[in-house]
Amino acid sequence: MSLDKKTNILIVGLGLMGGSYAKALSRRGYSVSAITKDQKSIDYATDKGMIKKGSAFADRELISAADLIILAVYPHIVLDWLKENAKYIKKGAIITDVTGVKSNIVYDVQKILPQDTEFIAAHPMAGREVYGVENSDDKIFWGANYIVVPTEKNTPFAIGLCEELGWTLGFAYVSTLSPENHDEMIAFLSQLTHCIAVSLMCTKDNPDLVRYTGDSFRDLTRIAKINDEMWSELFLTNKEPLLREMEAFKQSFDSMYNALKNDDSDKMREMMRLSTTRRKLFDKQS
Amino acid sequence: MSLDKKTNILIVGLGLMGGSYAKALSRRGYSVSAITKDQKSIDYATDKGMIKKGSAFADRELISAADLIILAVYPHIVLDWLKENAKYIKKGAIITDVTGVKSNIVYDVQKILPQDTEFIAAHPMAGREVYGVENSDDKIFWGANYIVVPTEKNTPFAIGLCEELGWTLGFAYVSTLSPENHDEMIAFLSQLTHCIAVSLMCTKDNPDLVRYTGDSFRDLTRIAKINDEMWSELFLTNKEPLLREMEAFKQSFDSMYNALKNDDSDKMREMMRLSTTRRKLFDKQS
Repeated sequence: MSLDKKTNILIVGLGLMGGSYAKALSRRGYSVSAITKDQKSIDYATDKGMIKKGSAFADRELISAADLIILAVYPHIVLDWLKENAKYIKKGAIITDVTGVKSNIVYDVQKILPQDTEFIAAHPMAGREVYGVENSDDKIFWGANYIVVPTEKNTPFAIGLCEELGWTLGFAYVSTLSPENHDEMIAFLSQLTHCIAVSLMCTKDNPDLVRYTGDSFRDLTRIAKINDEMWSELFLTNKEPLLREMEAFKQSFDSMYNALKNDDSDKMREMMRLSTTRRKLFDKQS
Repeated sequence: MSLDKKTNILIVGLGLMGGSYAKALSRRGYSVSAITKDQKSIDYATDKGMIKKGSAFADRELISAADLIILAVYPHIVLDWLKENAKYIKKGAIITDVTGVKSNIVYDVQKILPQDTEFIAAHPMAGREVYGVENSDDKIFWGANYIVVPTEKNTPFAIGLCEELGWTLGFAYVSTLSPENHDEMIAFLSQLTHCIAVSLMCTKDNPDLVRYTGDSFRDLTRIAKINDEMWSELFLTNKEPLLREMEAFKQSFDSMYNALKNDDSDKMREMMRLSTTRRKLFDKQS
């Protein structure tokens, strides 16, 4: 199997991400079906031509017909869903996911799958601050990163197929990382930034400050509007790497605090120059 | 005196801010002169029609002719400049500034000024990440806040004139705050955010991470490119209020850290919901 128009693709979970996958794949002529818990989402997606078939329960026929299964559900559901339904998956099928944390999921999943199927983890680094299939939009993939996260158990075939999926969806960059490197990267770049933004908004009650707010505060807190159910689960599922990054940030912030407290202008300026130099690198590719 | 086309306006310090003031005021037909330490800046500003006269030293004639003097220099220079040159300022002249910190400057300045002149502090909350008169641009005032920061010594006349200056420059909002309230606001909204961005960039060396960076990290660190000379001085001049805000943020960040460490999903979600609610307020006015 390689990704072609005969590939039967099943998306499990039609939220913003699953819906956007469905949109991108259907628009390119692939045959997409979906399983999600809400019949309204199935109806909506069918009506919009995003899927051909759908079911509000784990329909055995849909599962056993699928060559490629994409689990677009909350992290804790990935394992549960497969425990229950792996037995219906056809021989040779490939299963992938969209979850933002990996080490604490991928090894467990690969342990319980039947030998003649393969789970290859992936993380589409895209999203919006809105939810639900009605808001799905495959433009969120344009210019974004798609990361394939293989373990030693994965075959070159499955890795290649998953990379092909990333390109097909419209991502600008497709790369591979180990689960451990992925989780460290995501703890630093994504989860730590969300911790900071949320903590900053919780620092003080500030309705009066709104009128004085400039761009710097707005930029820093844009991501402080957050889906608490999803993000608390992502944090907990990536607990150890995130705690390490939080500790590293606290140390750095304490250095600035102590420099100010001790009137150590040199130390403050050294940090500011380091940060300026490092940040410039991030501009070049933006 | 009220701000009219006969008002002689002297700008001391032709950097980005002084230059942008000169541009805005000249375009509106006011008579603007300037004193700055670099003759090249004077030549540039004269050539571009931003000023009528200029001098690379503290020219007594320019000073004594001025009805309104705007000090657009680093905080520590405001007091030094006035100590040296207050004696040349004409009776009835109004002096204002553009510095981003107030309590540690305005009281000292008002103490040393001759009785027949008046210093009224102001903070134009605008800027760019570039420097020098060549980059000056009065568009930075559009949509921005201009804050007049009076003390008990100020007259309604000077306060009114300073407000008029803010509107004339093209600011979208002009308001007044006490020096103490101003400094607390600026410590939280501006200085703390810069501390966070700089600390985050100093947390780890990250050239490899550039390729995975999404919008959240970019947004949070945009202001980490920073003029270390100016910002270290601003931090030190507002030391006590900024230390208090940094402590408050550390407490909030520690709450998130401890919640994660203790698997306290409820506490994390409570913080996320609070931050989401509070952040929404900031959207309405953006």
